[in-house]
Order: sequence, then C-alpha cells, then structure tokens
Amino acid sequence: MAYDRNNIFAKIIAGQIPCVKVFEDEKTLAFMDVMPEAEGHVLVVPKEDAQDILDLSAEGLTAMMATVQRVARAVDAALTPDGILLKQYNRAPAGQSIFHVHFHIVPRWEGVPLAPHGKAMVEPATLEPIAAKIRSKL
Amino acid sequence: MAYDRNNIFAKIIAGQIPCVKVFEDEKTLAFMDVMPEAEGHVLVVPKEDAQDILDLSAEGLTAMMATVQRVARAVDAALTPDGILLKQYNRAPAGQSIFHVHFHIVPRWEGVPLAPHGKAMVEPATLEPIAAKIRSKL
Repeated sequence: MAYDRNNIFAKIIAGQIPCVKVFEDEKTLAFMDVMPEAEGHVLVVPKEDAQDILDLSAEGLTAMMATVQRVARAVDAALTPDGILLKQYNRAPAGQSIFHVHFHIVPRWEGVPLAPHGKAMVEPATLEPIAAKIRSKL
Repeated sequence: MAYDRNNIFAKIIAGQIPCVKVFEDEKTLAFMDVMPEAEGHVLVVPKEDAQDILDLSAEGLTAMMATVQRVARAVDAALTPDGILLKQYNRAPAGQSIFHVHFHIVPRWEGVPLAPHGKAMVEPATLEPIAAKIRSKL
C-alpha cells in the first residue's frame, strides 16, 4: 500500500490540523494522543513520509527513536509513572489505524489498567496542562 | 535500581546461556523469545548494560533500533504476517520481567489472538526452523 498523504498525522505535521504539542525538531514531532490509554500518552512521529517502521529510512528511524527516548525521559520525570510502555503498530491487523509511522509512549501505574485505545476523545484543554508538565522536563 | 549483571539476557549476551539466534552484530543480538506470544516472536537486545530504554546510550539506542528494523523486515519477508507489533516495557508495572532493555517483535495474523506472555515455554527444536526462515531473509 502506498503512503497516503491525506492521513491525519501528515496533516498535523503540515500544521493543517492542530495538536497539543510536546516537542518538535527538524525531523520529528511529539504530541498528546487525543484518545489516551493512560494520562500522559504521547505519540512520536517522524516528518518523513513513511507508512510504517519497515518503510522508514535509517535516518528517520534514528531521529524518531531519539525523540521517543527524550520524551519518555521527560514523561518519566514529569509524571513519575511506575513504568512506561512503548508500542508501535505496523499495518491494521497489528493495531495500526493511522498510516503514518508512529510510536506510543504510554505511562503505566501499578493497578491501573489501560483504557481501550481509540474509545474516548479527550479535549485539548484537558491535555494541555499535562503536555506543559512534560515540556517542562525536556 | 542499578543494572543487575545476573539477568538472563546478560548471560545470553555473554554466551553463558544458549539462545536460538536470529542475528548478531558488534552492538546487538536478536534471538527467539522462548515464551512467544505468536509464531516468529523475536527479541532484540543491545549488548550495552542498560536496564531500560531510559538508561540506554544514544549509540546503543540507534544500534538496537537498526537491528529491530532489520529483523522486523526479515520476519515480514520470511513469515508474511498480516502485521507486526513492536513493544518495549520499562519497569515491572509496565510489564518488564527481565531487567535488560529489550524490544519485542511480534508478528500478527488477522483473527489470531496473542498468546499470554510468559505462560508456555517452547522448545529450541521448535523455534530453530522459524529462526532459520527469518535468518534466510536478513
């Protein structure tokens, strides 16, 4: 399947759709998941057009993972979760629903189950103070 | 928590415990998960002593992810799954059970649920032909 430039993450990267931004550099963008599985659920995308991790260039992969690590450390410092889960889905049968490669950074707390992915939409006004806490630790 | 050099992955890296190897280079090792969640479940570890992704050096992270991508492409070519799930657990409340940083590469097939992690041990003789298929596509 060819990369579809009309996917929602491509539009967020292009600034055509807003996001609650956590971090941005030349090659990557990190923003709050609007359907979080846990408080502080952040998504990291490379700006390169790539549908999944198999398609991504070596340079894009290195940049994406540097941002994943940097943001995961900030999430850890800002929200002090008991653990952090990283997930990355490739193709729909693995759970991918938006076809621009992305990493999930999901804070975990002991005894708190994950919310089902993609069920409940959270308002930007609720996500912004969490993003601000994370940004303060970058 | 300090890195514990007696963890099982450190012993596999040191060659003190056997594994069904898929790939090895100077900085990383990939081998079959002995309690697979799906056929073709591979683990990738950096050789650097690091408990989780927050601890890993930038160089170790780049090397680990290059191997994750390389092996994921080989899994995809060898086993033609419908999708591929990547997971990485940091600290026990997120699901980490062995305290050397590692990535899970889990092939997914439509309609086939994941086996529970860490429940059933699979024999090396069963894993070796799967590993051989994956190695043939590296």
